[in-house]
Amino acid sequence: MLDNTVKNELKRIVGEANCSFSREDLICYSYDATNSPHLPDAVVFPSCAGEISLIMKMANAESFPVVPRGAGSGFSGGSLPVRGGVVISTERMKKIIEIDPDNMTAVVEPGVVLWEFQQEVERQGLFYPPDPSSLRFCTIGGNIAECAGGPRAVKYGVTRDYVLGLEVVLPTGEIITTGVRTAKGVVGYDLTRLMVGSEGTLGIVTKATLRLLPLPESTITMLAVFPKLKDAAAAVSAIMRARVIPSTLELMDSTSIRCVEEFAQVGLPMDAQAVLLIEVDGSRAVVDAEAAVVNEVCLANGAVTVRTATGKDEVKDLWKARRAISASLYRIKPNKINEDIVVPRASIPELIEGLQAISSKHGLLIASFGHAGDGNIHVNIMYDKKDTVEAASADKAVVEVFELCLALNGTISGEHGVGIAKARFLELELKPEVIDLMAAIKKAIDPNGVLNPGKIFTDKKSMARADMPGPSDTQ
Amino acid sequence: MLDNTVKNELKRIVGEANCSFSREDLICYSYDATNSPHLPDAVVFPSCAGEISLIMKMANAESFPVVPRGAGSGFSGGSLPVRGGVVISTERMKKIIEIDPDNMTAVVEPGVVLWEFQQEVERQGLFYPPDPSSLRFCTIGGNIAECAGGPRAVKYGVTRDYVLGLEVVLPTGEIITTGVRTAKGVVGYDLTRLMVGSEGTLGIVTKATLRLLPLPESTITMLAVFPKLKDAAAAVSAIMRARVIPSTLELMDSTSIRCVEEFAQVGLPMDAQAVLLIEVDGSRAVVDAEAAVVNEVCLANGAVTVRTATGKDEVKDLWKARRAISASLYRIKPNKINEDIVVPRASIPELIEGLQAISSKHGLLIASFGHAGDGNIHVNIMYDKKDTVEAASADKAVVEVFELCLALNGTISGEHGVGIAKARFLELELKPEVIDLMAAIKKAIDPNGVLNPGKIFTDKKSMARADMPGPSDTQ
Repeated sequence: MLDNTVKNELKRIVGEANCSFSREDLICYSYDATNSPHLPDAVVFPSCAGEISLIMKMANAESFPVVPRGAGSGFSGGSLPVRGGVVISTERMKKIIEIDPDNMTAVVEPGVVLWEFQQEVERQGLFYPPDPSSLRFCTIGGNIAECAGGPRAVKYGVTRDYVLGLEVVLPTGEIITTGVRTAKGVVGYDLTRLMVGSEGTLGIVTKATLRLLPLPESTITMLAVFPKLKDAAAAVSAIMRARVIPSTLELMDSTSIRCVEEFAQVGLPMDAQAVLLIEVDGSRAVVDAEAAVVNEVCLANGAVTVRTATGKDEVKDLWKARRAISASLYRIKPNKINEDIVVPRASIPELIEGLQAISSKHGLLIASFGHAGDGNIHVNIMYDKKDTVEAASADKAVVEVFELCLALNGTISGEHGVGIAKARFLELELKPEVIDLMAAIKKAIDPNGVLNPGKIFTDKKSMARADMPGPSDTQ
Repeated sequence: MLDNTVKNELKRIVGEANCSFSREDLICYSYDATNSPHLPDAVVFPSCAGEISLIMKMANAESFPVVPRGAGSGFSGGSLPVRGGVVISTERMKKIIEIDPDNMTAVVEPGVVLWEFQQEVERQGLFYPPDPSSLRFCTIGGNIAECAGGPRAVKYGVTRDYVLGLEVVLPTGEIITTGVRTAKGVVGYDLTRLMVGSEGTLGIVTKATLRLLPLPESTITMLAVFPKLKDAAAAVSAIMRARVIPSTLELMDSTSIRCVEEFAQVGLPMDAQAVLLIEVDGSRAVVDAEAAVVNEVCLANGAVTVRTATGKDEVKDLWKARRAISASLYRIKPNKINEDIVVPRASIPELIEGLQAISSKHGLLIASFGHAGDGNIHVNIMYDKKDTVEAASADKAVVEVFELCLALNGTISGEHGVGIAKARFLELELKPEVIDLMAAIKKAIDPNGVLNPGKIFTDKKSMARADMPGPSDTQ
C-alpha cells in the first residue's frame, strides 16, 4: 500500500493525467502472458528518465517496490508486481529518436513497439533481426529486459547482439549511460550486456542504441514435411553441417501441426509427424543456392516433400500459423506448462526421444515446436488444472523435462527468462556459488531491493507457478 | 614481498617445478607490449582451476595480489603485476578439450594460442573469427580478458560474440561456470559477458566454450589506392552503404604505408595518401559479386587503382605488411603513444581532419591505420622521449585525440582495454556514476581487491604512462 504522500508525489512527478490508482486501471497492469495476475498499487506513465529517477529515489526513501513494464507479453512474469508497489509503464516513451543509415544504428525509447520499429528501419533498407512471436505488440524495452530471441536468432543472434549502448535509470535513481554508439568498445565492464536479460531487476532502460544490418535482398521460405519426427530433428543438424545457416529453422511436431491447422487452415499436412519451416535470406544468388542445398538435405533425411512458398500470401500464412501455435494448443487442454528449453542442436533427436518417454510415462500430451536451428524448443505440457491427478503429473513432468535438458548440456530458458515462472528451478541449472554471485551483483546495484523484487531469486515459498495462458500467448 | 610460508605453499599447490621466484624468471613475466615492466614476486604455472582456486584463497588470507597472464601481448598493461605479487601464467593450460563440428562449438583452456586453435578448427571446416594482430602468439584467455577484436570484427564481431560460457575462478577462490553450451540462454544475469573484457579483474578464466562458424568457402583480397586520405575514409562508408559488409576493411595512411613498405617491401604505393585493404568472404558467387561492388565503389570514390591479390603469396604479403605497421613505425621516432579509438564509421573523415589539425598544431607526426570498417583507428603519436618539449606535446596531443574522438560519439578504446595505459583517461569517457557502479561490482566480486589490482580504476598518482613498445608490438 502506498500512502497519500507517495501518491501525491507520484502525481507531481509524472502529472496527474499520467498516473492512476483506480482498480480498473490497476487490473490492466496486473497481468502478463503467464496469467497469474498481481495488482499493483499504482501505475505511472513517465515521459523521461528524469521522472523515473525521481520515482526510484522516492522508492528507496519510502520502501516501495517498482516494477518496469513494456507490453506485458512476457512468459515468465518479469513485469508482474508480485509485491505490489508502482508499475512504471513505458508506453508513453515510444519515440524512435534516430535512425542513422550511414552508421547502421538507431536510438529508440523503450516503449517503441518492435514491429513498428522494424517496419520503419526496413523502409530505409535496414534490418533489425530480433523477432519474438509477440513482435506485433511487444516493446523494445521488454525485449532488452528479457533478451528476446525469435526464429531469426539461428542466423542473426538475439537482442543482446544488437544492443550497443543504453541509458538506464539505476534502482537507486542515478541515470547512467552504458556502452557505445560504435561496433567496438572496451572501456570498463560490459554494463550493457549485464543489463540486457536482467529482467528489469538491475535498472530501467530509458533509451537504447541499437545496431542495424543491411536488409537482405531476398528470402525464400520452405516447408519440409517429415513422416518421422526423428528425421526432422536430424535434418536440422544436417542442414547446418552443409554450411547453410538458414535465417529461420523452425520445427513443429504433429500435435502442434494439428492444432494450428484446425485453427489457421493454411494447408499443413495433418498426418505428418513433423514439419520444418525454413527460410534462407541474402542476395538472390545466395538464397537460390542455399535453398537448393536445404531441399536436397531435407529429402536425403527423410522428408517426403519440400514446398517452396510462392508469393507473399503463402509466406504470410505460414508465419501466421507458426505464430499461432502456442495459443492454438488450448484446443487440446485448458491448461499448459510451456517451457523454452535449449539443447545443443545435435542433441535434438535425443531430446525428442526423451520427451516422448516423459509423455508416455505420465500419460500427458506434450506438444513441441520452436527454434530447432538453435536448439531452442518450446515444450508444452498439456493438462487440465481441475484434474488434480493430471495437474500433479504435469508438475512432475516439468522437472523431468528440465533434468533431461540439463543432462543434454542444455539450459532451462533460451529466451523467456526466469522471472517468477522458473525461479524455483534456478538451482537445477545454476550452482549455489553462481546464484550467490548474481545475488551479490543485485545487492551492489539495488541495495534496498526496490526494483522488481521477487524475480529470478524469489524465495521459494512466495512463488506461484505461472502455468496459464494470458491474453497475449505467443512463443 | 611474499613470505616463505606463502612461497612454500605455492610450491605445494602447483609443484616445485611449476613456480619460480628467481629474478631471471620474474623478469620474463614483468612486461607486456606497453614496455613498462613491473616485477612480480613469484610466477606460477598451474595446471587446473583447482590449483588457481587454492592460490586465490591464500591470496585473500595473506593479502597478496594475483595477476593472470596469457602471452603478455596486451597494449594496456592488463597482465602487468603493478603491485607485485603472484603472476598466474596460463601457459600450461593449453588443451583444446573439444571441437564439436555438429554443434559448431569448442571447449578450450585459456593458454591455447589463438593461431593454433584457428588452424585446428579450420582443418575441420570451421571458423573462429577473432583475429587481433598478435594472433600468432596471443592466447584465448587473454583475448577473453581484453575482448580482443581484429580486422575481421567489421563483419564477424569481437571475442565477446564467440564466448558462450566460461569456467572461472573468482577472486575469492570459488570455481564457477557461467553461460551455456548453446546459442541461447537467459537463466540469470549474463556473467559470461561481464567476465569478457573485464581485463582479468573479476575472475580468472580456466575454460571457455566458444561458438564457431562454418569456414567461408572463399575469400578475395583487394588493395585500393587513394591519392587523398579523405576519399579513402569516405569510401569506407560508401562500401557499407552498398550493402557489402567486407570481412575486413583496413585503412593505412601515408606514414603507415611508407614505414611498412620500407620494412616489408610488398609493393605498396609510396606516394599514395591512403590504401584500403579489403577482403570479402563467403561462397564463390557471393565474393565475386561483392568484390565487383567494392571495386566500383572505390573507383567512384577517388581510388586510382583497385588491385585484386592473385595467389596465396600476395595475400600473405599484404597481411604481413598490415601486421607489421605498428612495429615499423619506430623507423620514424623512437617512441610512440598508440591509441585504439573508435568513432562511428561515417565520422572517419571528420576524425582524419581533426587528427591532421592536432598533428599540425603540435608539430607531431601522427600515423593512423586500422579497422576503418568498424571505425576503430589505431592512432600513433610519434615522438622522442629524450626531447622533453616533444614529449610534452605528445602528452597534450593524446588528450586532444581522445576529446576529438568523444566529440564524434566515439570511445577511447575499441579493443586494447583500459588497464594502466588508459586508466587516467577513464573519466573523459565515463561519468562518475558509471565508474562508481563498475567499482561496486568489482567490490562485490573481489572484496579484498586481490585480483589484478591497479587496473582500470587505478588511483591516478600511482600510474605510469604506458607509451613505449614491448617486444610484441602488433595492433
